[in-house]
Amino acid sequence: MTKSALQIARAAYQPKLPKALKGAVKVQEGEPTHSVADEEEIKKLFPNTYGMPLIKLVEGEKKDYAPMNVGVILSGGQAPGGHNVISGLFDGVKRLNPANKLYGFLMGPGGLVDHKYIELTTDIIDEYRNTGGFDIIGSGRTKLEKIDQFEKGYEILKELGIKALVIIGGDDSNTNACVLAEYYAAKNYGIQVIGCPKTIDGDLKNEMIETSFGFDTACKTYSEVIGNIERDCNSARKYWHFIKLMGRSASHIALECALQTQPNICLISEEIEAKNMSLDDVVTYIANAVAARAAEGNNFGTVLIPEGLIEFIPAMKKLIAELNDFLAVHADEYAAVEANKQREYIISHLTADNSAVYASLPEGVARQLTLDRDPHGNVQVSLIETEKLLSEMVGKKLATWKAEGKYVGKFSAQHHFFGYEGRCAAPSNFDADYCYALGYTASELIANGKTGYMSSVRNLTAPAEEWIAGGVPITMMMNMERRHGEMKPVIQKALVRLDGTPFKTFAAVRDTWAKDTCYVYPGPIQYFGPTEVCDQTTKTLQLEQAK
Amino acid sequence: MTKSALQIARAAYQPKLPKALKGAVKVQEGEPTHSVADEEEIKKLFPNTYGMPLIKLVEGEKKDYAPMNVGVILSGGQAPGGHNVISGLFDGVKRLNPANKLYGFLMGPGGLVDHKYIELTTDIIDEYRNTGGFDIIGSGRTKLEKIDQFEKGYEILKELGIKALVIIGGDDSNTNACVLAEYYAAKNYGIQVIGCPKTIDGDLKNEMIETSFGFDTACKTYSEVIGNIERDCNSARKYWHFIKLMGRSASHIALECALQTQPNICLISEEIEAKNMSLDDVVTYIANAVAARAAEGNNFGTVLIPEGLIEFIPAMKKLIAELNDFLAVHADEYAAVEANKQREYIISHLTADNSAVYASLPEGVARQLTLDRDPHGNVQVSLIETEKLLSEMVGKKLATWKAEGKYVGKFSAQHHFFGYEGRCAAPSNFDADYCYALGYTASELIANGKTGYMSSVRNLTAPAEEWIAGGVPITMMMNMERRHGEMKPVIQKALVRLDGTPFKTFAAVRDTWAKDTCYVYPGPIQYFGPTEVCDQTTKTLQLEQAK
Repeated sequence: MTKSALQIARAAYQPKLPKALKGAVKVQEGEPTHSVADEEEIKKLFPNTYGMPLIKLVEGEKKDYAPMNVGVILSGGQAPGGHNVISGLFDGVKRLNPANKLYGFLMGPGGLVDHKYIELTTDIIDEYRNTGGFDIIGSGRTKLEKIDQFEKGYEILKELGIKALVIIGGDDSNTNACVLAEYYAAKNYGIQVIGCPKTIDGDLKNEMIETSFGFDTACKTYSEVIGNIERDCNSARKYWHFIKLMGRSASHIALECALQTQPNICLISEEIEAKNMSLDDVVTYIANAVAARAAEGNNFGTVLIPEGLIEFIPAMKKLIAELNDFLAVHADEYAAVEANKQREYIISHLTADNSAVYASLPEGVARQLTLDRDPHGNVQVSLIETEKLLSEMVGKKLATWKAEGKYVGKFSAQHHFFGYEGRCAAPSNFDADYCYALGYTASELIANGKTGYMSSVRNLTAPAEEWIAGGVPITMMMNMERRHGEMKPVIQKALVRLDGTPFKTFAAVRDTWAKDTCYVYPGPIQYFGPTEVCDQTTKTLQLEQAK
Repeated sequence: MTKSALQIARAAYQPKLPKALKGAVKVQEGEPTHSVADEEEIKKLFPNTYGMPLIKLVEGEKKDYAPMNVGVILSGGQAPGGHNVISGLFDGVKRLNPANKLYGFLMGPGGLVDHKYIELTTDIIDEYRNTGGFDIIGSGRTKLEKIDQFEKGYEILKELGIKALVIIGGDDSNTNACVLAEYYAAKNYGIQVIGCPKTIDGDLKNEMIETSFGFDTACKTYSEVIGNIERDCNSARKYWHFIKLMGRSASHIALECALQTQPNICLISEEIEAKNMSLDDVVTYIANAVAARAAEGNNFGTVLIPEGLIEFIPAMKKLIAELNDFLAVHADEYAAVEANKQREYIISHLTADNSAVYASLPEGVARQLTLDRDPHGNVQVSLIETEKLLSEMVGKKLATWKAEGKYVGKFSAQHHFFGYEGRCAAPSNFDADYCYALGYTASELIANGKTGYMSSVRNLTAPAEEWIAGGVPITMMMNMERRHGEMKPVIQKALVRLDGTPFKTFAAVRDTWAKDTCYVYPGPIQYFGPTEVCDQTTKTLQLEQAK
């Protein structure tokens, strides 16, 4: 393949490793663990993998390891650094014994079930070191959760002589990795399963997993373009830029980008839900900021919006739920209504509260809520262009205020949505190092016979040399949650904590950012420059770890 | 202001200068020049500034210069490097005589007319070296073309003792700079006017102006995110990404980004116009590529679309012209038609050809063409989401083909529009150097009493040391063109040449790119790394200058 100059130069980068992983390694076991909640249920569901100790990798004596084969899967959405997890795993596995083989299952967990795989050789690995993307073996969203899938997987693992499987994924994929580990352990199949914490969303984190990989690079890439837009905004002084950022559930990405770029406004879904704000409250909040800036002659600004916002507005959530229920029953009747009477039809059939919310929506969004539905008949919330919805409603509110003499200014908006721009960026030095260490750590957990663990590298705001590598029993992160009407053991999703330092830091300064123009321009990720430019972690991590 | 780590590190960058500008400089005059066309008319319109010689700056003897003040204006849309033009100009002016002052007029040419300005001091300049944006003094779109504006400008120039004005802008702004130079010369006001070639669009170039500044950085920034999207596309293997790129007239940006990232498809407006392609031809072209890839199991791809496409499709241009004329007369009648009958109303009132084209458009776009009109009643072409229009029409065509058994595959699209993401990026080394040299050169043209010249720095694919600095009479680039119904002297806009090496290089490989997956991932602009990563020029420039 044709390579860019940067790709060629970057291929030579040797990720920095924690000190303990540089030579021979041994396992140090801590105290037994317990799940974050619902101990009894989780214990019952995971008799073989519950309560295992935390593991720390420390310097040890050189040991001989019998040859073994290992498999690896990329699961779910892309995140920068996946190729480095695999190259770290590859180097680790080969260091244990050069005869060891690494197999990659193709296009996600489906490759395991359908027996699609390749052997990952030095030639292949070397093509992908320090690159973005998951294209080395592809990724997919098949969920590994059924026994026949586990058994189909076992067939091919046995055939290839694979001793351990590494699943690189988000919270759901790691939950399933643990279910699989438990199943193979219960069956005495002799196959270990290790998870790796991946997601740009940043919502897979806890006491032992300081951050998921990819969050750093993705946020830096979004912050680069947000900063560029802010600078444009501050030069042209005539547009409000409404920028939606990927991240369906948690608002970590929006918050991190706000900390990096200091926009006028950043909405945090978790706060909006906690304060039980209505859509009109959100619109009013933005409109007030626009009006306050306009009063000082500044008819421009930047607003960051988390992708999942709509579902965190309690009133919208209720409206969507009723629409789903109502249209499930009245779909045909609704379809028979004349196009220009459909809006009225919906308004007259909903309960009073929801009807009022629906009536307040701009026509395009209202239409989308009733027309664009998924195969199960549900509203497709991800298709709603929240950035346009908000700017349109803000514009209307300002027009009213103008008529009432409460606002003097011009309001003109531009819209952006960033997601795919960052998921496959070449990993920052941090993600390149962190991912490589996660993969390398996985190889040691495997060598030491562990299963049901997630690879863990901690102390991440210190230099890589001082990072602490080890393993965390996945059951330790679990609780029971209702999913599709059933109680299931799952890894707790980490939403933005309103009592956490990152949010509190933001909340303390946002009024100033809203009124004044305090933009910061982070610029593009640098790989070769001074360490304070190239090796900084996210603001989120820095603030969470600040003593 | 709070600065990012990169901004702080980057502030120390010392732009590389052409050898001739490093010490004392003298002017070397070439032969008299003539305009690219319409010599007689241009000569008559510019009696004082026509036919001046080309100028080259060469090493000279140290000379004393009397103190002078200089003014600078940023005109039109933002482009990376504007701050470096100003800092080059500042350093140049101060070197001539430390007592010299530089004034910046605020928010574009309007600042000159309205007497809004600041003195640019060392403290201010140092805050903005090597940064993106035009925020140092702001920019604006006021056109300097009327005598009362020239006279209002003269008042303040006289008051501030300004000897020369530097106007940093695109083709129109430089045309106006020349008109202003001619006016002040004719009036014997003793005020020189110098232009600087700015525009990310890349359409201000000719024999003497090899490229406009900002094109390099903007294209690299767009190529970074396009490359990231391609990598995502190639990892998830389930979406076609339709990416629209800024550039209202010429397709230079799309072509350059294609050369950098090797997408499956890149549309070139100039070619579509030359081949007299219809909208359906364009849609069929894309759909064929989608179908060919689907036949090999590849239901994903990337399409680059120049922003100005619609106006280059002859049939669309005709339709828009008729709609403008028709609605100018029948606006009230149309407004009275029921919403769900408006489409039919338009279809039944247009001439046959245009009616057929209109009928083929998706509802949303059709509506936009008749509803969203500017204050003069014209269709707002820039609001048309061409990327969605095309993907929707491609989807429909594929559905037809599927029904006919001619296509087997899945087609799912994502949409992007990049423009504001790149206009204010921190300048690449190339733009930082080039802009600084342009500003520095302007100071020497001023010192040597020149007016009606554009600052010119050539031989740009050689190391900066070997660049050739000088001045080009603006009249030399002019011809007569019809604008708003009147013949006017204007700088010829440089569209993509279908017989030029960049286009021919692209055309020779695009079929392979369409079928196979040949993506290149340029990654983010680097400022500190190896020279082959940090100092490359655009592919366009490399190919244009290849011998």
